[in-house]
Amino acid sequence: MARLVGNAVIGQSGGPTCVINRSLVACVEELRKAKQVTGIYGARHGVEGILCEQFVDMKGQSTAALAKLLDTPSAMLGSSRKKPKPADCARIFEVFKKHNVRYFFYIGGGDSAQTANIINELARGEGYEFRTFHIPKTIDNDLLINDHTPGYGTAARFVASAFMGDDLDNRSLKGIKIDVVMGRHAGYLTAASVLGKLEEDSGPHLVYCPERVFRFEQFIDDVDRVYRRLGRCIVAASEGIAVGPNEEDLITTEAGEVLLRDEVREELPKDAFGHAQLSGTGILADYLVYRARKALEPKHGKLRLRGDTFGYLQRSFPGVMSEVDAREATQVGRLAAKYALSSDVDGSVIIKRKKGKSYAVEYDWKPLSEVAMGEKGMPDDFINKAGNYPTQKFIDYARPLIGKMPKTGLLMAKPVKKK
Amino acid sequence: MARLVGNAVIGQSGGPTCVINRSLVACVEELRKAKQVTGIYGARHGVEGILCEQFVDMKGQSTAALAKLLDTPSAMLGSSRKKPKPADCARIFEVFKKHNVRYFFYIGGGDSAQTANIINELARGEGYEFRTFHIPKTIDNDLLINDHTPGYGTAARFVASAFMGDDLDNRSLKGIKIDVVMGRHAGYLTAASVLGKLEEDSGPHLVYCPERVFRFEQFIDDVDRVYRRLGRCIVAASEGIAVGPNEEDLITTEAGEVLLRDEVREELPKDAFGHAQLSGTGILADYLVYRARKALEPKHGKLRLRGDTFGYLQRSFPGVMSEVDAREATQVGRLAAKYALSSDVDGSVIIKRKKGKSYAVEYDWKPLSEVAMGEKGMPDDFINKAGNYPTQKFIDYARPLIGKMPKTGLLMAKPVKKK
Repeated sequence: MARLVGNAVIGQSGGPTCVINRSLVACVEELRKAKQVTGIYGARHGVEGILCEQFVDMKGQSTAALAKLLDTPSAMLGSSRKKPKPADCARIFEVFKKHNVRYFFYIGGGDSAQTANIINELARGEGYEFRTFHIPKTIDNDLLINDHTPGYGTAARFVASAFMGDDLDNRSLKGIKIDVVMGRHAGYLTAASVLGKLEEDSGPHLVYCPERVFRFEQFIDDVDRVYRRLGRCIVAASEGIAVGPNEEDLITTEAGEVLLRDEVREELPKDAFGHAQLSGTGILADYLVYRARKALEPKHGKLRLRGDTFGYLQRSFPGVMSEVDAREATQVGRLAAKYALSSDVDGSVIIKRKKGKSYAVEYDWKPLSEVAMGEKGMPDDFINKAGNYPTQKFIDYARPLIGKMPKTGLLMAKPVKKK
Repeated sequence: MARLVGNAVIGQSGGPTCVINRSLVACVEELRKAKQVTGIYGARHGVEGILCEQFVDMKGQSTAALAKLLDTPSAMLGSSRKKPKPADCARIFEVFKKHNVRYFFYIGGGDSAQTANIINELARGEGYEFRTFHIPKTIDNDLLINDHTPGYGTAARFVASAFMGDDLDNRSLKGIKIDVVMGRHAGYLTAASVLGKLEEDSGPHLVYCPERVFRFEQFIDDVDRVYRRLGRCIVAASEGIAVGPNEEDLITTEAGEVLLRDEVREELPKDAFGHAQLSGTGILADYLVYRARKALEPKHGKLRLRGDTFGYLQRSFPGVMSEVDAREATQVGRLAAKYALSSDVDGSVIIKRKKGKSYAVEYDWKPLSEVAMGEKGMPDDFINKAGNYPTQKFIDYARPLIGKMPKTGLLMAKPVKKK
């Protein structure tokens, strides 16, 4: 092939992750080596920046300046939730032509692959020589074709650590604790709650993912059973159980906001509205706490019931990076540049897991359209029959992705005889 | 003095921290060296375990088994919120006499010092030879006399890290973000939100502590001003602003639950009840978001407004320990044993800061009654006049306590000229 000479644009899209800047830096470093890449433009806030020509010069960045970004969470170029309309895509393509952009890299999830695909199709249609590569990223781990996605391992490590700590806290002061985890349609992150367990009886004891129907009756029975056995119970609930296959009491608006159904709201005692433990929060966590309290206190008496929602910390907390995730985020960024520079193809970088006992991956690429086609939930055999806990198969799958966990342990001590 | 021969009891009390087991292990290790200590009993769940003679053998623990606890968050013996009544204290003293307990160590905050003091006074009253030492612990940093308290440094490091990440996240996807931080009466932990700032314009931009009157009007004006300047705004609000000197809309029950005043609840549009962003949570965070939205959207149009409540992660998240905090938690545990074994005194171990440019501390002890007398908020000159940000004096005070932060950086890149 003839070398395609021109500028490169790189952008970041969707929810930030802790390793997305690894992909950015690796891609830029690789592009800087290529003579045919005349300029490297970072798009501010993804397609929004492209639409109004807000680019920053990434070619002029020193290696030292870029190195500072390696362990920095968030999308350093700025991110965007915008899903460009056809007219936007045409405008983007105009901007690219005006700036002689011949290489376009977009780091993001399925939506970003779709955007990249549309722009790429426009270029093809006009016979404009142009290379597009999508670089995979999402903490939800819901990207098609990929074994897993950069960003997930570190977020999963945060969630596993959070539950490890929460279990220890709950052993100190016993009670029922309900924690809500990110992941609207896929339960991968919620299921990661079990990866930091120190022993069989460690929490979370119950895990509810959006792939399965959530029923309040079962939830109450489950919590009751665990509480009777252990005198405590920790629940991991995906925020997505409210938008999953069953939505008993919660509904989701088109804007993605979660509401209580009117009937439910009216049924709540006046108290429960303004009424929450200071450390227990979030409408879903609060509501699960409320339902559990209403059902279980008549049987057990006053319960120590709390709810927490882990929120944005799951995707942004610095200093808890999975080394596996960091390495792979670097690789997909580097390979996107390599593929685009060395061959006549457009696509998305893909992570495949090698068969074998020890964890290893290989990389490949697939056409943009294949990755952009949708998103995937967890396979059926990653969740147990009862729909309240991940299977060993999930654990085997996810454990290698989160890296080495902090070393912690439990006290094993003999009781002293009473007198 | 004659060597006092007998058993020792050690217990943990109040909210767990990430370094409280350091104090436990250090105290036990020191006691194991002393021949006059015949047995070392860990009390399960503090005074609750003592009341029903639930002790575990700590003398039989191997050094390797104890070492596993060093980096393990939570109160490994189990903790307790119980404030013993006079009858309980008498019962505790009976149990101690029955088991020939001559040394009592209680790791906790001001309440624990008070409990230790009452039991100690009982022993004195009966002429029972008995040594009591309180070992300081609290993430709230509100213990009297001490420069600071073990547990605070690590919790402050978590909060500083969380805001560092949240600021980076908020740069990626701009908006107004309100984060609620633990600390019902003291603002130390909330003020720690500023310790991870990467530059002047980093969040949090506004910090509200319970030591100052919280006024919604000022809050709205403050947020509006920052948002106009930066196009984004991050707020750190102490959960304690609801129980602080001013309680406009929120009230706290004796049980410590926070309620919205009835008038406010009625004023809220129906929507706002069941209505929350999935990642924005907690009655206080949600309510601050609601107030900001109501006041600011008429001026600015639709805003990206979110709230998070950091919850129990602040005191239990593993792997982010401050090395300074860990060292000091070890020292206070060790010294409590040393003081009790080598002298005729009862008291609480105290941390004092040495004068001088570089950070250094020295240890001492004070009578139990002095530490048990109450709790302290932040000094007036740790908060600015406007009551919406910590001063440099606070930063100088707190910065050495949180240890070395993760290395992160911002992208500094020149804009590319538009065409």
